[in-house]
Amino acid sequence: MENEVKRERPPHDSVERALDQVGDRWTFLVLREAFFGVRRFDEFLGNTGISPAVLTDRLKKLVEHDVLAKQPYGSHPNRFEYRLTEKGLDLYPMIVLLMRWGDRWLDDGDGPPITLHHRTCGNDLRPTLPCEHCGEELRARDVGWRPRHEPG
Amino acid sequence: MENEVKRERPPHDSVERALDQVGDRWTFLVLREAFFGVRRFDEFLGNTGISPAVLTDRLKKLVEHDVLAKQPYGSHPNRFEYRLTEKGLDLYPMIVLLMRWGDRWLDDGDGPPITLHHRTCGNDLRPTLPCEHCGEELRARDVGWRPRHEPG
Repeated sequence: MENEVKRERPPHDSVERALDQVGDRWTFLVLREAFFGVRRFDEFLGNTGISPAVLTDRLKKLVEHDVLAKQPYGSHPNRFEYRLTEKGLDLYPMIVLLMRWGDRWLDDGDGPPITLHHRTCGNDLRPTLPCEHCGEELRARDVGWRPRHEPG
Repeated sequence: MENEVKRERPPHDSVERALDQVGDRWTFLVLREAFFGVRRFDEFLGNTGISPAVLTDRLKKLVEHDVLAKQPYGSHPNRFEYRLTEKGLDLYPMIVLLMRWGDRWLDDGDGPPITLHHRTCGNDLRPTLPCEHCGEELRARDVGWRPRHEPG
């Protein structure tokens, strides 16, 4: 992804903007739980080891950023659950690739802790990110870039 | 990705292990710079707005985790550059998907700040993560999981 003209990059690209909303260890762990179906405060708490104050803060921010939606549940007026929005669900492929990286490089010698499978086709998943045109796996050295509004 | 038996998940999956090594806003920004070809302390400093103390800390951790390799350069005995290792380069697809998420959801109205293109085939990239078997885009609701050593 190296180019000759490093300094002509826009100052705030989409990586930086994305990290403003989800660039935090606890935030990612909360999102992981959400993708496993966790929706309630106590479950997030028990599954992550996060402190109540930090969890409250991260859930609040994720709701503010429209990544999670806070909804009342049951007949309790003050009970809420947190569900992934469309924007939140769209983080799933990134979390899957983070998991895959951990599977490959941080294996404890026993193989991946979890196996994912695609319900749609029934196969186990070990996905990689291909070029959507030629199908080859994307590698940093094969990818160039240009700033917005500059012809290719 | 919801399953019936939430509690049977291994306590430390690969997401959590991965976040132990790269789950930090500044760490991701340092990695972004590295993927843009930045290798020297002063360049990381200037391009990210990170403080020297935090940059020193993050570079040290990334070297300890074998994500970056610290190497002397030129004829200066005390000058070093930081290059992505194979393990570090393997984070690229995840960073690309984080960028794509930012492109889609945190657009400032002008479209993506940067366009990527695949040098191998010459096309602009807007990649999504497909199932490697059936080719369908992976969505959270279509993916199940099972713990290690449990048959499918």
